[in-house]
Amino acid sequence: MRTGIATVCLSGTLKEKMQACAIAGFDGIEIFEQDLVTSPLSPEDVRKMAADLGLTLDLYQPFRDFDGVSEDLLAANLHRADAKFRLMSRLGMDTILVCSNVATATIDDDGLRAKQLAALAELAGDHGVKVAYEALAWGKYVNDYEHAHRLVEMVDHPNLGTCLDSFHILSRDWDTAPIEDFNPGKIFFVQVADAPKLSMDVLSWSRHYRVFPGEGQFELAKFMGHVVRAGYTGPVSLEVFNDVFRQSDVERTAVDAMRSLIWLEEQSAKWLEANPAAGGAANGATGTVAGGPPAPGRRRYPMELATLPQVAEPAGFNFAEVKAADTAALETVLGQLGFEFNGRHRTKDVQLWTMGHARVIINEQGPGAGDGTPAPAIAAGIAAIGFDVDSPVIASARAQQLKAPVVPRKSQANEEVFQGFAAPDSTEIFLCQGSPDGTAAWTREFGEGLEVPSGSRSAVIDHVNLAQPWQHFDEAVLFYTSALALEPQPYAEVASPSGLVRSQVMQTSDRAVRLVLNLAPLLQQDGTRHKTYQEHIAFAVDDLVATARAARDRGLDFLQIPANYYEDLDARFGLDPDFLAKLQDLNLLYDRDADGEFLHFYTATVGSVFFEMVERRGSYDGYGAPNAPVRHAVQYDHLHQLTK
Amino acid sequence: MRTGIATVCLSGTLKEKMQACAIAGFDGIEIFEQDLVTSPLSPEDVRKMAADLGLTLDLYQPFRDFDGVSEDLLAANLHRADAKFRLMSRLGMDTILVCSNVATATIDDDGLRAKQLAALAELAGDHGVKVAYEALAWGKYVNDYEHAHRLVEMVDHPNLGTCLDSFHILSRDWDTAPIEDFNPGKIFFVQVADAPKLSMDVLSWSRHYRVFPGEGQFELAKFMGHVVRAGYTGPVSLEVFNDVFRQSDVERTAVDAMRSLIWLEEQSAKWLEANPAAGGAANGATGTVAGGPPAPGRRRYPMELATLPQVAEPAGFNFAEVKAADTAALETVLGQLGFEFNGRHRTKDVQLWTMGHARVIINEQGPGAGDGTPAPAIAAGIAAIGFDVDSPVIASARAQQLKAPVVPRKSQANEEVFQGFAAPDSTEIFLCQGSPDGTAAWTREFGEGLEVPSGSRSAVIDHVNLAQPWQHFDEAVLFYTSALALEPQPYAEVASPSGLVRSQVMQTSDRAVRLVLNLAPLLQQDGTRHKTYQEHIAFAVDDLVATARAARDRGLDFLQIPANYYEDLDARFGLDPDFLAKLQDLNLLYDRDADGEFLHFYTATVGSVFFEMVERRGSYDGYGAPNAPVRHAVQYDHLHQLTK
Repeated sequence: MRTGIATVCLSGTLKEKMQACAIAGFDGIEIFEQDLVTSPLSPEDVRKMAADLGLTLDLYQPFRDFDGVSEDLLAANLHRADAKFRLMSRLGMDTILVCSNVATATIDDDGLRAKQLAALAELAGDHGVKVAYEALAWGKYVNDYEHAHRLVEMVDHPNLGTCLDSFHILSRDWDTAPIEDFNPGKIFFVQVADAPKLSMDVLSWSRHYRVFPGEGQFELAKFMGHVVRAGYTGPVSLEVFNDVFRQSDVERTAVDAMRSLIWLEEQSAKWLEANPAAGGAANGATGTVAGGPPAPGRRRYPMELATLPQVAEPAGFNFAEVKAADTAALETVLGQLGFEFNGRHRTKDVQLWTMGHARVIINEQGPGAGDGTPAPAIAAGIAAIGFDVDSPVIASARAQQLKAPVVPRKSQANEEVFQGFAAPDSTEIFLCQGSPDGTAAWTREFGEGLEVPSGSRSAVIDHVNLAQPWQHFDEAVLFYTSALALEPQPYAEVASPSGLVRSQVMQTSDRAVRLVLNLAPLLQQDGTRHKTYQEHIAFAVDDLVATARAARDRGLDFLQIPANYYEDLDARFGLDPDFLAKLQDLNLLYDRDADGEFLHFYTATVGSVFFEMVERRGSYDGYGAPNAPVRHAVQYDHLHQLTK
Repeated sequence: MRTGIATVCLSGTLKEKMQACAIAGFDGIEIFEQDLVTSPLSPEDVRKMAADLGLTLDLYQPFRDFDGVSEDLLAANLHRADAKFRLMSRLGMDTILVCSNVATATIDDDGLRAKQLAALAELAGDHGVKVAYEALAWGKYVNDYEHAHRLVEMVDHPNLGTCLDSFHILSRDWDTAPIEDFNPGKIFFVQVADAPKLSMDVLSWSRHYRVFPGEGQFELAKFMGHVVRAGYTGPVSLEVFNDVFRQSDVERTAVDAMRSLIWLEEQSAKWLEANPAAGGAANGATGTVAGGPPAPGRRRYPMELATLPQVAEPAGFNFAEVKAADTAALETVLGQLGFEFNGRHRTKDVQLWTMGHARVIINEQGPGAGDGTPAPAIAAGIAAIGFDVDSPVIASARAQQLKAPVVPRKSQANEEVFQGFAAPDSTEIFLCQGSPDGTAAWTREFGEGLEVPSGSRSAVIDHVNLAQPWQHFDEAVLFYTSALALEPQPYAEVASPSGLVRSQVMQTSDRAVRLVLNLAPLLQQDGTRHKTYQEHIAFAVDDLVATARAARDRGLDFLQIPANYYEDLDARFGLDPDFLAKLQDLNLLYDRDADGEFLHFYTATVGSVFFEMVERRGSYDGYGAPNAPVRHAVQYDHLHQLTK
């Protein structure tokens, strides 16, 4: 698949954008007119720079408001087009995007439109330019891609074809199957964008909220499947208008964008395999089929779709790692929760603490120290998470192909080598070899010897909650989706005294891994890395009341829950008075839904980390969301008292 | 008018919110349940604190999903209500908001709903509680305020009334006139919120984008006029769910909120005067009219509406002031533009520079120095703007009543005393006495003597462009609307290499004052005050080409416009080649619309300030918006080259 991206997706100058696209590995780019107009680079400079960077210049865009106009406006539009065609020849570009008219069209007549588009195609032909005509979702008369394509067929000119943009098609819920019957020679260009399903006017939705494939809710694999089956072999190019991407670091965003196309390519191949063509041979099979006979169980299409190493979703958490400059407070809290100290690593400054199959590594290097990452000014923070996978080598190969940045992990001889990657928020993600009895072989590298298989799995890591910087939230969703096969759930918003917190759960189908990405309010962020926002690790136990009592006996500093909460709980659930008293006595929180019950408590915060203990009763599948505002308010109050 | 505000409008803890409301001068508050549930304060604590702060506790809210349910759910709901009524008696509160059912209603039957609401009212009566029933805009069966009120009338119980919320009414475009015929004794509560007109689902709109009156586009004065005419005399209380306000400083937001009610009160009185009641006497006139006989030309209503000192819109800019630690670069640029040095102030470290009637004060104290405001790390910045008003004393009294923070301005004897206020972005706003010949008396305080009336008004200050921190953008719109009588225009969004810039024009009807508020991308902000984002002052002249030539001869460092821009200009407008060459030669930008033409150029930036010279031909009323991305891109490029 030839990959492309429109320069409008990225922040910075045209030069910075082109460099970032080349580094991220794109084959080509679309030049968004404004990026050229505002650039000090001449068209010849841009052409040379693209060649030097190994980028093809695939599409000049957009040319607006051409068709369906009065005669004198047509003349002005053709003058405008002529100037752009001459410019394109200086750029060495041969395809221009022409959008259906939004502003100046006054005549709704397909015959007239075809006549005017024919005049444009004729002029384009004189300059060796191909016109890709696209129906905008809010086009005045033409807003349906099939309509645009009918016009192309009416004109039947070699220099006029269609451009398919997934946003304009899927935002309107148009059926995508008819694409398969398009003449592939008439599909001049394909643009892809994903988007969250929002109910708002489609223009605002399009201009501000598009995201890269895999970061939204559009059925893009299906869309692409139809495009591939039509026989299209040209570039698949991202056109994403997004307020956040426009502000984010250009090189990071370009890599995020590239990852989305690699992922989309895989998903498209899977969709094609799962949805065999109804009518037998694909369109493109009559002439341009690439390669030999189709492999068993897999059709061959003119567009080659590369595949990635396949991985199953992770089987569980292997460990969580917390870094702290001064580890005493962390050790105290873990001990009070019932964790046991399992020794220090034989060569590294890390400690292992375990409770059942829950393993916590305390890294004594302090946050950010030792591996070149910037050191945030916090006393303790979640630094790494280990996941159990079938094959760390295969999972690592997949992550690398998805452009996950490798984390160097020093190892001595005879020590297990972890395959590690940096997540978008710079948390380190390690891929570990799971074992059937739930133990981890690497624990033998710690002083007190190999971990003993425990009869009970209690406790296990139930979920990890990570704060995300606002610039990288969508990127994080795609990262965990594509590299770790976690499934994003619908997000929730939780009130806190310093603003709404957006909470995005990513989980495996069996819930062995639950990761919660929290987008903290802006004032709690310091640009690149959350600062005052708190993260946590939650452990599931079989008997929360007993765990809480034992922890209290050991002197644990519980997060103090206000009395008002228990009154409200009673009003909502009508709880047994003894049970309610027990909850209040132990600072336990409670939730109930049709699936079951949820009991949990929180520790006080150490640095920017705290811990949660949970008990899931029945099939309760949530996180006690109604209780989250209480937790936020108490933590806020505590923090403000500390800083006053 | 009794003023109120829901605690959900503000950030912080319940305690912080209550304190901020008291400081801002609210009469009472609504307690949003979650704020109480998450608070360590007992209900008795809250009651005492409110009394100590002089705040009444006007409304407990919300109670959700009560009506139209099955029999067993009704029992659970009454249990829930009973608990809340008991809680309210501990708080000393007597009114609760009950919203129409969104989630659990299964029976669409007004008879059943009335029966269930009657049961609730009866229970409420036992506790001395009044139930204010409100139709949510997205209520499952009840989403229209008239429907809610019909149910109240059907039940006809002394403890059941209606709550009118402007958002739920105006977001659905319901006619507000029928309010006038409501029995005022049945209107238990009135909530007001404004909102921008957005086309999105009404729930998301309501939960995230409400703003305070005067910051949106709802016809709130009309809504309030009908409410007043109905005879309602209770609190008018703000209920505004806004993502930004939830994150902003609680005391500032409370003042912003209070200002919006003071402004709304005035606007409501004006609306009542301009729209006499059709049917003669108002509802409330039959019984509870307060005060004596109506003043001539003004009806008296049961609710007293306080008025503010009245001011006309400002007649023009009096001056703009730029602060700089090192003023040499500023002096150079102004001199090159054609400004003349008019001397130093006799007692202060400021210089006066003039060109025609455009006056620029260079303050040598450096940004932020000298008056206790924090000093941003920039070399030069716009510090103050003076406006010509009819009566500085009256305008100042109005601004003070609108809670504009007074800026202390030291003055010697015999010097003109400026009335000054701090705008939300901390720019100082001074109210000056205009003069018919366009001169300013204060200029005699400068060394070279009194300003000489100029035959030509060229140049004048055309507009001032100020960067706004994201937390205070809506506040700024209301500030300039209410205190200075500027009119907000529909906003535009402009692409820049570091993100979209939201640009909000505030102007007078004769365009003598044009103020542009720019909301810079987040990464260009540093929390409370714009840092790298650039602001500017624009001057209008009669002959821009001559001005540019003279400036070039004096060695001005123009903002360099890329050649690609002129090619695009030609493609768009088909300009005369000589004219186009002249534009390009002088780095002039150009725009044209149906009203006229616009020529302009920019200087290089000094600190965070640059200057623009403009020529308006015909009735051109804009700011060259199509050229703004070019300006942003060149400035970005320049800044990045400097910092590399």
